[in-house]
Formats: sequence, C-alpha cells, structure tokens
Amino acid sequence: MGLLVVGSLGLDTVITPFDRVEEALGGSATYISIAASYFSAPVYMVGVVGDDFPKEYIDLFEKYNIDLKGLQIVEGGKTFRWTGKYQYDLNIRDTLLTELNVFEKFNPVIPEELRKSRFVCLGNIDPILQMRVLDQLDSPQFVVCDTMNYWIESKKPELLELIKRVNVLIINDSEARLLAQEPNLIKAAKKIRSWGLEYLIIKKGEHGALLFSEDKVFSAPAYPLEMIFDPTGAGDTFAGGFIGYLEKTEDTSIENIKRAVVYGSTMASFSVEQFSTKALEGLSSLRIHDRFLDFMEISRFDDKE
Amino acid sequence: MGLLVVGSLGLDTVITPFDRVEEALGGSATYISIAASYFSAPVYMVGVVGDDFPKEYIDLFEKYNIDLKGLQIVEGGKTFRWTGKYQYDLNIRDTLLTELNVFEKFNPVIPEELRKSRFVCLGNIDPILQMRVLDQLDSPQFVVCDTMNYWIESKKPELLELIKRVNVLIINDSEARLLAQEPNLIKAAKKIRSWGLEYLIIKKGEHGALLFSEDKVFSAPAYPLEMIFDPTGAGDTFAGGFIGYLEKTEDTSIENIKRAVVYGSTMASFSVEQFSTKALEGLSSLRIHDRFLDFMEISRFDDKE
Repeated sequence: MGLLVVGSLGLDTVITPFDRVEEALGGSATYISIAASYFSAPVYMVGVVGDDFPKEYIDLFEKYNIDLKGLQIVEGGKTFRWTGKYQYDLNIRDTLLTELNVFEKFNPVIPEELRKSRFVCLGNIDPILQMRVLDQLDSPQFVVCDTMNYWIESKKPELLELIKRVNVLIINDSEARLLAQEPNLIKAAKKIRSWGLEYLIIKKGEHGALLFSEDKVFSAPAYPLEMIFDPTGAGDTFAGGFIGYLEKTEDTSIENIKRAVVYGSTMASFSVEQFSTKALEGLSSLRIHDRFLDFMEISRFDDKE
Repeated sequence: MGLLVVGSLGLDTVITPFDRVEEALGGSATYISIAASYFSAPVYMVGVVGDDFPKEYIDLFEKYNIDLKGLQIVEGGKTFRWTGKYQYDLNIRDTLLTELNVFEKFNPVIPEELRKSRFVCLGNIDPILQMRVLDQLDSPQFVVCDTMNYWIESKKPELLELIKRVNVLIINDSEARLLAQEPNLIKAAKKIRSWGLEYLIIKKGEHGALLFSEDKVFSAPAYPLEMIFDPTGAGDTFAGGFIGYLEKTEDTSIENIKRAVVYGSTMASFSVEQFSTKALEGLSSLRIHDRFLDFMEISRFDDKE
C-alpha cells in the first residue's frame, strides 16, 4: 500500500568547513522519501514547492518511485529556501537565511486515495499541520513524527497533543532535554513517554540512538565515520530509513522496531558522506544490508560460555 | 597469580548538586582495586599514604582481599587530598583544592615477589612513574594504562613512549581529541593507535565506551541510569572491572576483551550511584553478572529471518 510522507521541500545552501553547495535539494520530506524509497514502494510525498522548483529534482523523485500526486506546485510561487553554515567540528549549525516562500501558507491536503495509508511519516513541520494531516487520515496503523527545538519552544501544547496521536516521536538529545525540561536523558525520556507516547527515539549523532518503549531501552551504536561531510538531513534520513523498513516488513513488533532503528542509523550514516541527497542516490539493498551487518558487528558481544 | 595495581590513594571531599562528603576514600588505585577485587584475588595494590590514613580504609581493603604489601605508609606524612565540585548536570567538575602531600615524592617500588605479575593496571599517575613501574617488571603479559588531560598537556613525549609499552590505553573522549589533536573521534583513535598502541578504549560517559583494535571498532552501550549521584572514580572503576575480568579469565582474545569492556562499564555504572566507593561495596558476582546481561539486552538486535 506504500508509505505516506508529509514534510518540507526546499532549496538548501550549505556551507561546511570543507566546501559549499548552492540551492541543493533539501527539506524533510525529500530526505525521508528518498531514504524510505530503498524499502517502500511507492512512497507518496505530500508537500509544496513553487514553480521555480527544478525539473531535475522532480525527475529524481520519480526515479526513486516517489509518487508526487500529493505535491502542490504553486504557480508563480517561490520554493522554500534555507542557508546554513556549519562550524569547525560540524556540531554547531548557524542558520544564515530562511525564506519560507510558498511554505508559509502550506496546508497539507491528503489526496482521497491516500487517506487509508497505514504507515505515515510526519516530517518536521508545524505540529498544527502535522495534526491536520492526521485529521484527514482513516485510522493509520503506525505514525512516526519528527519535530525540532523551534516547535518545542513555540508550540509545546500542540506538540503534546500531537504525540498522544502518534506511535513514535523522533528527536535529538538536546530536544529531548528541552521538551522534558530535564537534564538526565533517561529521566527526560520517561517523562516524555508518560505523556501518552508509545515509542520515543532519541538521536545522539556520533553517539548513536536510543529507543525507549515500555520499561525498555535499546541502544543502537553509531557507525564509526572518519569523515562527516554534511550533516544536513541526517535526522530526516534516519526517520525515512526507520519507517520505510517498518512499512516494507509490515511488522511493528519491538524486535522489528529495533531493526528499524538500525536501518534508520544505517541510512543516516550514508547521508552525511556527501552534500544534499547525493550520498543517498545510487545505493543498493545489498550495500544497505552490508552496513546494517556492520552495525551488528560493532555492537555484538556475548556472555562467556 | 593475581593482579598488580599501581596508582593514587587519597581522601576526597566531593560536592555535588545533591550532597557533599568530606575526606572519603578515593584515588585511582582505590577504585581500580575494589572494582577488580570482584574478579581477581588477590589484588596487589601499590601506592602511598601518610600515617593519617584512616584504619577503617585499611580494613576495607583487607575485607576485599586487597594485598597491601606494596602500600607505602609514610611516618609523619599526610595523605593526598583532593576537593572537587560538580556543576548542575554533573558533566563539569571544578577542582577546588589539591594537596599532593606524600604523593608528591611517590616512587613506586614493586615488591620482589610481585615483579613477575602477568596482569598489571597502571592507574592515573605521572607517566614517568608508570614507566618506572614497567621497568621493574619481568615481562608482564597484559598492561592497562590510564591517564588524564593534565599528563597529556604536560608530559606528552613520556606518554607517547609509555603507550608503546602497554596493551591498552583507557582515556575519555575529550582526552582522545586532545592527545591526537583531532576533533573526529574515529580519526583520533586511529592516530593514537598508529603510535604503537594495541588497544585503545575511549570512555564516553553517558554515551558508553568504544574499543579500537586493528581495523575494528566495538561500541559498548551505557547503562540507562536515571540518577548519577557522584561520577568520581567512574573511570578508575571501569579500568578495575576491565582488567579484573581479564585477569580472572586469563583470556586476552578480542572477544574476551569486548566482554571485559562491558564488565568495566558494568562496574562503573554501579560506582556512580553513591559517594566514594560506597556503591562498590557489598556487590555480588550475581548482581554484577545480572547487570552485564542488562547491557547485553540493551544492545541486542538481530537480522530479519
């Protein structure tokens, strides 16, 4: 039946200590959809762009079997643009410019034939819009939701309402501490889950990811990358690999959700190796599975005897 | 044959956001020896104290089968004292006072009958002293060495000479970056190992630990602690659990070294739950093994099928 993805599409200008790229393909829906496309087919992408959105990117989506019937193309409108600059160690990112353009009035409309979607990924957009998506759906089986510090600070009540309606919230460690107002990550996770959330995933960048479920914690390692070229979109890519794998396997048992966390980490580990979506292009199931097995090898140990 | 431990013994005054303790038992040799005593017997501790060192701490060591023939007690001397204060999130520690006292002129002398020790742990002291210990030993089988930023900054040439003569160096992530002058931890580890080191362990606190061997990385998870009461000695405790387990099993294969990393993490996870060595006292092999199995459960996932 495929995967429904809602989020942003944009043109990103990214400056790293090593290089820069101008108006490259970006946005949460973009990264989620391309990562998920290695597992799910088709991926239905709902978002908005202006009529200046390059044709080559439309072609790219189509190449990855990403269905665009939910993509709004605003006549005479300009696509969302973002410029960011990473500092020396790539852990700190400064936003230099944000032009919302057509994204400012984005109202996600889910095409009739997609309203029965069972697997749904709500990319990082206003929680009010994320809820509006859920309102249009006919009891989805599994909903994953991403957010960011901006929404935690400006729309916390709406976010708390939203997380009661999703299965998984994916955030990073500083967002978890901010959301829970608690410096200890384990306590923070417990608090967030107590608000009515089934699963919480906390991404920790170079330190891997944690999955919190009922009284259980799963710790996924990070892939030992010697070179991180551009971290932009790594979190979205994680979400795409995670939900794509779950949709493909149609298995939402805890054991399979753990595997999905590792597939999310796997996709994110590729993503940061080049600018924009470049490193996600041209992967294969075999390469992805090989790196999944690397994650297994990195974290494997046994009890004596 | 037992384990040889060389390091500091001291009286620590520790202030945390929750509480404080005055002149509690501390020092690298103390934590290493007590942690290792749950695996190795006996543990031979080499260090120095003044004659003000409380009798109750001597009794404590003896209770844990820690042999004190290598402990120098300086008549009329004062024991090493340290006062530290942890900030709100426990990640930053300020040293308020250091009185070296008898430790200032410490010259480790290995008693004749311990010179054939096969397993050796060099706790965090001046690398020149650590080398002087090695000079007295008759080809030990496996040597673990700890250090800290102070020695990395002040005695780097001596430290680089030392690491060629040990099997494992244990440091934390900021120390690894400092030693290698490289922000990427994986690159930093590679660089440090290239200087002639067999195994490097990088402790990452709440993010677990990494073991680097020839072209391989092993990632051990952190135990999901909701409450860290006092981090003092956690690194020494890690080293003690690590080398104690190796000495007990007399197996230095890579698979067993991985287990030892998890036993080190296990002991450290207990250590931080109370002040000083309190949480290490009264443990049992069963409780330790249970927590080892928790670490396994936390990081376990499988491939589909």
